[in-house]
Amino acid sequence: MEELRLNPVLENLKRGGPAVILPKDIGPIIAYTGVGKDSICIEAGTGSAFLTVSLANICKKVYTYEKDEKFFEFAKENIKRSFLENIEIQNKDIVESGFDVKFEKQKVDLVMLDMPHAERAVKYSIKVLKKGKFLVGYLTNLEQVKEFVKECEHEKFQDIFTIETIEREYLIKEKGTRPVHQGLMHTAYLVFARK
Amino acid sequence: MEELRLNPVLENLKRGGPAVILPKDIGPIIAYTGVGKDSICIEAGTGSAFLTVSLANICKKVYTYEKDEKFFEFAKENIKRSFLENIEIQNKDIVESGFDVKFEKQKVDLVMLDMPHAERAVKYSIKVLKKGKFLVGYLTNLEQVKEFVKECEHEKFQDIFTIETIEREYLIKEKGTRPVHQGLMHTAYLVFARK
Amino acid sequence: MEELRLNPVLENLKRGGPAVILPKDIGPIIAYTGVGKDSICIEAGTGSAFLTVSLANICKKVYTYEKDEKFFEFAKENIKRSFLENIEIQNKDIVESGFDVKFEKQKVDLVMLDMPHAERAVKYSIKVLKKGKFLVGYLTNLEQVKEFVKECEHEKFQDIFTIETIEREYLIKEKGTRPVHQGLMHTAYLVFARK
Amino acid sequence: MEELRLNPVLENLKRGGPAVILPKDIGPIIAYTGVGKDSICIEAGTGSAFLTVSLANICKKVYTYEKDEKFFEFAKENIKRSFLENIEIQNKDIVESGFDVKFEKQKVDLVMLDMPHAERAVKYSIKVLKKGKFLVGYLTNLEQVKEFVKECEHEKFQDIFTIETIEREYLIKEKGTRPVHQGLMHTAYLVFARK
Repeated sequence: MEELRLNPVLENLKRGGPAVILPKDIGPIIAYTGVGKDSICIEAGTGSAFLTVSLANICKKVYTYEKDEKFFEFAKENIKRSFLENIEIQNKDIVESGFDVKFEKQKVDLVMLDMPHAERAVKYSIKVLKKGKFLVGYLTNLEQVKEFVKECEHEKFQDIFTIETIEREYLIKEKGTRPVHQGLMHTAYLVFARK
Repeated sequence: MEELRLNPVLENLKRGGPAVILPKDIGPIIAYTGVGKDSICIEAGTGSAFLTVSLANICKKVYTYEKDEKFFEFAKENIKRSFLENIEIQNKDIVESGFDVKFEKQKVDLVMLDMPHAERAVKYSIKVLKKGKFLVGYLTNLEQVKEFVKECEHEKFQDIFTIETIEREYLIKEKGTRPVHQGLMHTAYLVFARK
Repeated sequence: MEELRLNPVLENLKRGGPAVILPKDIGPIIAYTGVGKDSICIEAGTGSAFLTVSLANICKKVYTYEKDEKFFEFAKENIKRSFLENIEIQNKDIVESGFDVKFEKQKVDLVMLDMPHAERAVKYSIKVLKKGKFLVGYLTNLEQVKEFVKECEHEKFQDIFTIETIEREYLIKEKGTRPVHQGLMHTAYLVFARK
Repeated sequence: MEELRLNPVLENLKRGGPAVILPKDIGPIIAYTGVGKDSICIEAGTGSAFLTVSLANICKKVYTYEKDEKFFEFAKENIKRSFLENIEIQNKDIVESGFDVKFEKQKVDLVMLDMPHAERAVKYSIKVLKKGKFLVGYLTNLEQVKEFVKECEHEKFQDIFTIETIEREYLIKEKGTRPVHQGLMHTAYLVFARK
């Protein structure tokens, strides 16, 4: 089985909490949204904070919401381990309350949703995004993708597209170059929608 | 055929010059190396500067080398179009001369090689990288991968691994969810090697 | 773009009619059902008869149904070109009429469905299959897969499974081994259900 | 992890001997060569006889060679379990001795090689194949592919092509359609070469 490859920023984080978003999917999230060192990001839910930390390593500020109290504690520990100081985490259910009102004025460069019923947060996302910037849904199955895309269309997002990535690691030997036999076949679908 | 998806940073750049590195591969380069807003990067060759601009959007500083004079002019134009001011480009053949001597003191967080005979620049790369940081080779075919990996082993790099990503875009319709029929099957292999 | 690879049996058939089932999918249909030289197969619809001819080349007898009159004529021409004499084709809509009554006695070894609303023919398929033998659905999108699987479950089929295959062709050169850049990303999903 | 799917013919065979060729690869071997009920096949080596039995289930006759005595005994047991009577197996090293002389007269419709140094049997294969028929190499790594392709070119085979298949199984649920998370990423490359 393929070894888990984590980057220098992620390798200090704790495993064993909620499912993590891996570099395999962190990569396209960053590359297709174009976030950079001036970007302000909102994320819900935080989960194990692997994506939170990856975004904070790149962006100016990350606001992240986690409704589950246990996950919230787990995420806080991982944020501490990252030594990054530009992350603000709240223990809050975004579907019930929406994002903080302040974001309707100080709009953001990315809204990242990785949570059950992410489609219910699409209507909040459009309000807090700067024009031209992306909402991303990290969604395990195609039923979720369909509901999410439908909501994005309903909220008049542009350039909605859905991708998945299959990543293969190779064994490189003098006389034996081939992909690793077993590996990750699927993690999630990524939906991108631009305001 | 799948549409070309570029992010807000890349969509202003010119096409039609040397082959570009696409978000499909920019993603894993960023995600597996863990570069962020404090990172200093070296890149050779610049090509169309799509990766250059993507790294500069995220990192503190990017030094990039392009030996071909036409590509150098094309890249300069794209760097201008990006409005990013943290890129330094030189028209220079790194295989002949190595990186600037100053980097042996002010070491860097990433060396990114996308050039013919990238394996010949591996020995220069180890000298300029900070400990724990990555060299990445963007390599079209497996013979190049083998030579590159061999050189990395010879220079005592750690955690050498090789991946490829296959990305699929989906059509999401009320009654017709499926991957797009035709698409990109292969761009390049990515070799990561850690100092 | 990857060249179309057809086997010696298929290369004499006409193209330009309804979409063809390619070796990429003909392979798993044969390999997962285990049909062989003693097998009797039913197929609906015939389409361009590429699968019909492939099955007839292997099996004892193939009964095939095509409701569209133009496709029926096209298929007849291709059956003629195959010089195979163990194919019986009818211009008939299976959803309306079911398979011939005789099959409820002389049961068959494979029912292959490649047609709109294939799920409506599942109830006829269970009646004509020998115990332990397979129904296969060739289905373009996941909504069809779900309806088809649901019907199979309703009709008490066993061992229901769904696969897709991604096939890549390689360029093999002394100094340039790599997958072909562009290619077929998706043809169809295959659902297998055993009586 | 994805369940192993075997067809009704293969599910009675013993596992636990040499590595088996799975339906994933048996499919394209049959589909791209166009073998059928009139075909005569030669195979070396037999291994666990999964492909042997699959070919014998479809073709008129299969001659198979296995040089390893233990594998030969294992394969004999599996051939017995298949109840197929059109398989002839010999405990013989084809690289040393070539195929039986009789095949230079009664030529065959398929030569299938799954053995170490398969490239050394290419020169014997061209002699025993009918014109227009295929040699297939089942090869684990790309170095073997290159040597095999080179030999095929040297022996003037036509239409040489190399493929790999990636197969994914799907979970189909009312509210949770997605590929299985873990699975087989690589089995082998298939090289096809036509006389």
